[in-house]
Amino acid sequence: METELQGQEKTGITIDGSGCIKAVFGKIKATALDLAKETKKVGQDDPRRIIHSLKVGLALTLVSFFYYARPLYNGFESSGMWAVMTVVVVFEFTVGAVLSKSFNRGFATTLAGALGVGVNQLGSLVGEKEEPIILGLFVFLIAAASTYTRFYPHVKARYDYGVLIFILTFSLVSISGYKVDEIVELAHKRLSTVLLGCAICIIISIFVCPVWAGQDLHTLVATNLELLSNCLEGFGSDYFGVSRDGNSTMEPREVESSIHGYKHVLNTRTTEESLANFARWEPGHGSFLFRHPWKQYLEIGVLTHQCAYHIEALSVYSNSEIQAPPELHRKIQQPCMKMSLESGKALKELALAIKTFAPPSSVGVHIESSKRAVDELKTVLEAVSRKGDDLLGMIPSLVVSSILTDIVKCVENIDESIHELSRQARFKNAVVGTVSLDKPGLLHHGIVKLINGHEGDGNHVIVSVHGTSSE
Amino acid sequence: METELQGQEKTGITIDGSGCIKAVFGKIKATALDLAKETKKVGQDDPRRIIHSLKVGLALTLVSFFYYARPLYNGFESSGMWAVMTVVVVFEFTVGAVLSKSFNRGFATTLAGALGVGVNQLGSLVGEKEEPIILGLFVFLIAAASTYTRFYPHVKARYDYGVLIFILTFSLVSISGYKVDEIVELAHKRLSTVLLGCAICIIISIFVCPVWAGQDLHTLVATNLELLSNCLEGFGSDYFGVSRDGNSTMEPREVESSIHGYKHVLNTRTTEESLANFARWEPGHGSFLFRHPWKQYLEIGVLTHQCAYHIEALSVYSNSEIQAPPELHRKIQQPCMKMSLESGKALKELALAIKTFAPPSSVGVHIESSKRAVDELKTVLEAVSRKGDDLLGMIPSLVVSSILTDIVKCVENIDESIHELSRQARFKNAVVGTVSLDKPGLLHHGIVKLINGHEGDGNHVIVSVHGTSSE
Repeated sequence: METELQGQEKTGITIDGSGCIKAVFGKIKATALDLAKETKKVGQDDPRRIIHSLKVGLALTLVSFFYYARPLYNGFESSGMWAVMTVVVVFEFTVGAVLSKSFNRGFATTLAGALGVGVNQLGSLVGEKEEPIILGLFVFLIAAASTYTRFYPHVKARYDYGVLIFILTFSLVSISGYKVDEIVELAHKRLSTVLLGCAICIIISIFVCPVWAGQDLHTLVATNLELLSNCLEGFGSDYFGVSRDGNSTMEPREVESSIHGYKHVLNTRTTEESLANFARWEPGHGSFLFRHPWKQYLEIGVLTHQCAYHIEALSVYSNSEIQAPPELHRKIQQPCMKMSLESGKALKELALAIKTFAPPSSVGVHIESSKRAVDELKTVLEAVSRKGDDLLGMIPSLVVSSILTDIVKCVENIDESIHELSRQARFKNAVVGTVSLDKPGLLHHGIVKLINGHEGDGNHVIVSVHGTSSE
Repeated sequence: METELQGQEKTGITIDGSGCIKAVFGKIKATALDLAKETKKVGQDDPRRIIHSLKVGLALTLVSFFYYARPLYNGFESSGMWAVMTVVVVFEFTVGAVLSKSFNRGFATTLAGALGVGVNQLGSLVGEKEEPIILGLFVFLIAAASTYTRFYPHVKARYDYGVLIFILTFSLVSISGYKVDEIVELAHKRLSTVLLGCAICIIISIFVCPVWAGQDLHTLVATNLELLSNCLEGFGSDYFGVSRDGNSTMEPREVESSIHGYKHVLNTRTTEESLANFARWEPGHGSFLFRHPWKQYLEIGVLTHQCAYHIEALSVYSNSEIQAPPELHRKIQQPCMKMSLESGKALKELALAIKTFAPPSSVGVHIESSKRAVDELKTVLEAVSRKGDDLLGMIPSLVVSSILTDIVKCVENIDESIHELSRQARFKNAVVGTVSLDKPGLLHHGIVKLINGHEGDGNHVIVSVHGTSSE
């Protein structure tokens, strides 16, 4: 209402009929434009969303033809709606989620149906007056107990939907009041339609542009490492006010946005956990075997988050206007920049190793280099301490040094954890090749996507980078 | 399988019939014991879970009586199952979630039903051969478009369930093949049963031991502040190896667990967001009016998380074995302990202010005190700097000082944000009373729950604490 009035004031029209209409049209136009922008953005962020929507449409159309073509398929009739319902509810974004929901739905329907028939028969054994009481009691007890199990953490994570369907089916079957032979027929129809719905969902989700939760988790973990790597590579130049290798290819705005990439990492914990849960349901695909060590990804995720917390702490200083006295600032510049740059490079190599399924063999060089920089820093600080400057003014520089030392340690832990993953998942010993590139600066931003396109085939190439750096 | 064999080896029984049976029974017993323990823990963590389960049982039993007592209520018959289905799916833990789902379900069913009738009629206008094609096309288009909107962030957060029900109902109605008058009757039945189900859920969730999302969010934000407060109060004594006021009432193990409380805070972001979403749906209750500023809680949450990140950084040093040289360590001890203790006290007062709906008036004292400690620390560091000690060894102490300074700033921001909340939510100017307590140490751990019991009535009392502290 307020916006509307402001809009009218801006256009300077007195509130009469045509003005009102114009204002309303203007508002509608603005809303439509916003909507169009958002629609475009949602699709650009992940084009698989468009394909997913079309897949859901396809699955529903298919299942509705089954339903519509009744003479073709006599058994379904009214219970055909269960197939429609199944498709709508079960068709999730990733294959793992579809399989998890299908399994939950199928298993829960069968179990609850059997139990419901039992309770129904028990009810028919007692008198007609007692029957509703017996049935009500059972519905109460089983619904309450099942609802309670939904609070168990591992049930909530994996079988929440199954328990829901269990309660639903049990209630429907046990109070239906049908005779046993009627129920068996009903159960048969319902189960077959549910299975038909699940089958359509599973087939379409696996064979039409599949979105694997495992692949997504794999990419997410690698992307998070890359984001942190960009932060670290950007930090040195940002904090010390110099470009990192004399000919940085990043625009200032790009540097700014890359430094805040860690914030994105801080928010991905829940996504990682749910993707790992779904990935367990997926069959082997591409480079992932059936028992891929998904748990290890969660461990890498925990370490990545710790690293992101450290970078969050760093970021306070990268924007702070309190400048350390030029002398110490200048002295620690070289080792500190080396620490952040080499840690960043190590993380980038690790991300690349994950994306290309290659053992992270060349990372050691960067980690060793960053550790040498820690020693250099110690030497510098020992030399400074003998002079006795203004301690208070030194604190920001010292804190930055300390956090960077922690980050070096953290990157070492991430490296170990990814080595463990590479052992468990049997990353192939890749063919070591040498690629010469004209623009080393581009490499860090472009190559990952380049190689990503080759995922799935067996021949992976480690790219040894011979670029110039500030060392 | 492995466990089973190990079990047999342990008991030393050769694998014969009775041994096998014993082993299996042992395993079953162990599993049952684990289950019993988990069941107890789930209930102890939040006893409202037990009540919620009973409420779901009650709602389902009620609705199944409607369904069962067919002669009593002729209109329902087969569509009575929709009422059962509604109750199972809509009955969530908090009132806000129930209202949100009920609204989504009711609105989506109506809208999709109307649209479905329109499309159905359009289909009947064309020839019998073209009808399935027209209908299939509409189902495809509307299902795909609706599925796409589920990726819009604000739709996903608030109307995800509504869109699901929209797709479901639209598909069912448009392909049903009924004539319009039949559909109108069907829609009438279905809508009335859905509304019956929703009504039962809403009434039971509001009038039988209600769980308000708003109240939960309110408590969560306050509890998070308390957890951080415990961390800060524990840090000083832990890091400097002294008890904080000479007569600490906490056991060493309690101190240990309180210091790691911040980890819990780091994981509550998603919960806060979903609770805030649900709280918007809730009517006024207790001390919360209808348009309570729920957004402000999210802002307080963001600042609380920042503070938790700082404490995460501190925690590295509280366990580190690298000890600073005794001299600097000893010199900064007093201001640092004061900073962490006073920040902790300020957070505790803020938590109390939120829980009691009182303006956080006495917090200023602690914040001023912590800021004075920052100045004292600066003086100490300036004095130290003129001597020229081993700089390298000083770093841990200096980093701790720096992080504590950041925490003091952070607490100040939290204070401002809570003042803003208290203005927006019109916290009452409470009666300021003075309570003398024999055991001031207990106050920090017990009083909050004590006062929590009085929530909902208008008379709140600020408790001014006159305890001894290490100052």
